[in-house]
Amino acid sequence: MIYSETPIDVRYAETDKMGVVYHANYAIWFEVARTDYIYKAGFSYADMEKAGIISPVVDLNIKYKQSITYPEKVIIKTWISHYSPIRSIYSYEILNENREVVSTGSTTHVCLKKGSNRPIRLDKSFPEWHEAYMKIHEETEKGIDRKL
Amino acid sequence: MIYSETPIDVRYAETDKMGVVYHANYAIWFEVARTDYIYKAGFSYADMEKAGIISPVVDLNIKYKQSITYPEKVIIKTWISHYSPIRSIYSYEILNENREVVSTGSTTHVCLKKGSNRPIRLDKSFPEWHEAYMKIHEETEKGIDRKL
Amino acid sequence: MIYSETPIDVRYAETDKMGVVYHANYAIWFEVARTDYIYKAGFSYADMEKAGIISPVVDLNIKYKQSITYPEKVIIKTWISHYSPIRSIYSYEILNENREVVSTGSTTHVCLKKGSNRPIRLDKSFPEWHEAYMKIHEETEKGIDRKL
Amino acid sequence: MIYSETPIDVRYAETDKMGVVYHANYAIWFEVARTDYIYKAGFSYADMEKAGIISPVVDLNIKYKQSITYPEKVIIKTWISHYSPIRSIYSYEILNENREVVSTGSTTHVCLKKGSNRPIRLDKSFPEWHEAYMKIHEETEKGIDRKL
Repeated sequence: MIYSETPIDVRYAETDKMGVVYHANYAIWFEVARTDYIYKAGFSYADMEKAGIISPVVDLNIKYKQSITYPEKVIIKTWISHYSPIRSIYSYEILNENREVVSTGSTTHVCLKKGSNRPIRLDKSFPEWHEAYMKIHEETEKGIDRKL
Repeated sequence: MIYSETPIDVRYAETDKMGVVYHANYAIWFEVARTDYIYKAGFSYADMEKAGIISPVVDLNIKYKQSITYPEKVIIKTWISHYSPIRSIYSYEILNENREVVSTGSTTHVCLKKGSNRPIRLDKSFPEWHEAYMKIHEETEKGIDRKL
Repeated sequence: MIYSETPIDVRYAETDKMGVVYHANYAIWFEVARTDYIYKAGFSYADMEKAGIISPVVDLNIKYKQSITYPEKVIIKTWISHYSPIRSIYSYEILNENREVVSTGSTTHVCLKKGSNRPIRLDKSFPEWHEAYMKIHEETEKGIDRKL
Repeated sequence: MIYSETPIDVRYAETDKMGVVYHANYAIWFEVARTDYIYKAGFSYADMEKAGIISPVVDLNIKYKQSITYPEKVIIKTWISHYSPIRSIYSYEILNENREVVSTGSTTHVCLKKGSNRPIRLDKSFPEWHEAYMKIHEETEKGIDRKL
């Protein structure tokens, strides 16, 4: 797969009274990691928004295998597990300092025109981005394993 | 089904620059709603923790159908969609002011001894709670529709 | 003083690994309470934003006297400690279930035209709101004690 | 002064519908920066907690001069503006990418025995930490300017 690795230093604010990272914060980390993936692939989510397009999460899944504590450092491994011009799925693994997978997850995204919420095709609005993701998709199909 | 309804007033802090509620905050609302469900069923998650048992989320799923804005008031409808003494699934619908379902989700929970992370059976540790949830399960099977 | 009281149920998500409410969350509660104060005074911050005016916090102060735990219920007492058409200060007390003051704070606000960040006078843009706050100011000067 | 500089990449989750970073999040950044200051000074807040001592914020002040947007990168400059064995004040400046000061703030801390909330003197409980902070205090008095 074509993946990125994004380091995250756990913040004290992210813990709860169970003594571990509060579960909703994983979704925030996924977003940080996804933004980093996009950046390493040569694009920018902020620029997409500046062009009047938003890409909200329409589906979120997280599995919690082992808890994460403060002050751990974790790595979010991110890859695209499904791509079409109208819908993308990013998948994630959270690795602890021993590179054990302590959580997995995925987020599904569409692109919408800001304001009207009209669906947008990535190949029409951001053809270079589409080309890059098609290439990543093809490489993944061929079994290529590459870190962005 | 045997369900609770929990009103939530959207907080400004819960929005993001897309102008709508940030997606990770739905998981926080689910927790508020789940706590309310448990309370209305006659129990208390805080008391469970005081007894040295925690009940972390091991699986989270959220589908986002329509965005939620500030200052909307929403209702979280909560019910138990699966119950066994070792694993419970709570399901949720978020209703807007027109009672349209704008989001759905579920959280899966186990009970663990705090510290050791040893699994706990609800029927052994909290027999009354187990009885109440078995009764809710049976009523649900019979097609009874009742608000807690 | 002319004050409002806003009940807040502590959310589990608001705690940290110290076992108490994380200190930054008090600022979120102040905002919930301020919005409630404005509403009880007959106005709406959301409507102000719809009219293209924002009222950001320019100064925040919080004193933490006693910690707050989950699942406490607290009350935020809110009043206007300074008002002029260009700058308002809201003051807050957080009361626990025994009505002991466990925290105090204040937030200073200006009004700005959204986008340009040009300062706005409340008496010019929202004359009724200005009148109501002037009346509250006068009542406060006279030592009147009244709950909104 | 003896200071640290901590880079922060603004997270999308940290913005609100005003389109800028939500004001309460600055307090979280101050904590990230303070932890980094302590680390660069040779110590660890997490180790303090492991030894059964907590150091809560008892006073928080933040001034907001210019808003911060996504996806900015900011730097938190942190220094100790007051030190005694029973009370420390950390001061902060948030610098934007042009190194303009867009916000300033401070947090006051005491040390408490976890559980009993009995005050702890740093010179008794962590003598090396006390020595280091006394040295920093003396250097600051002498007008020494040094980055940790």
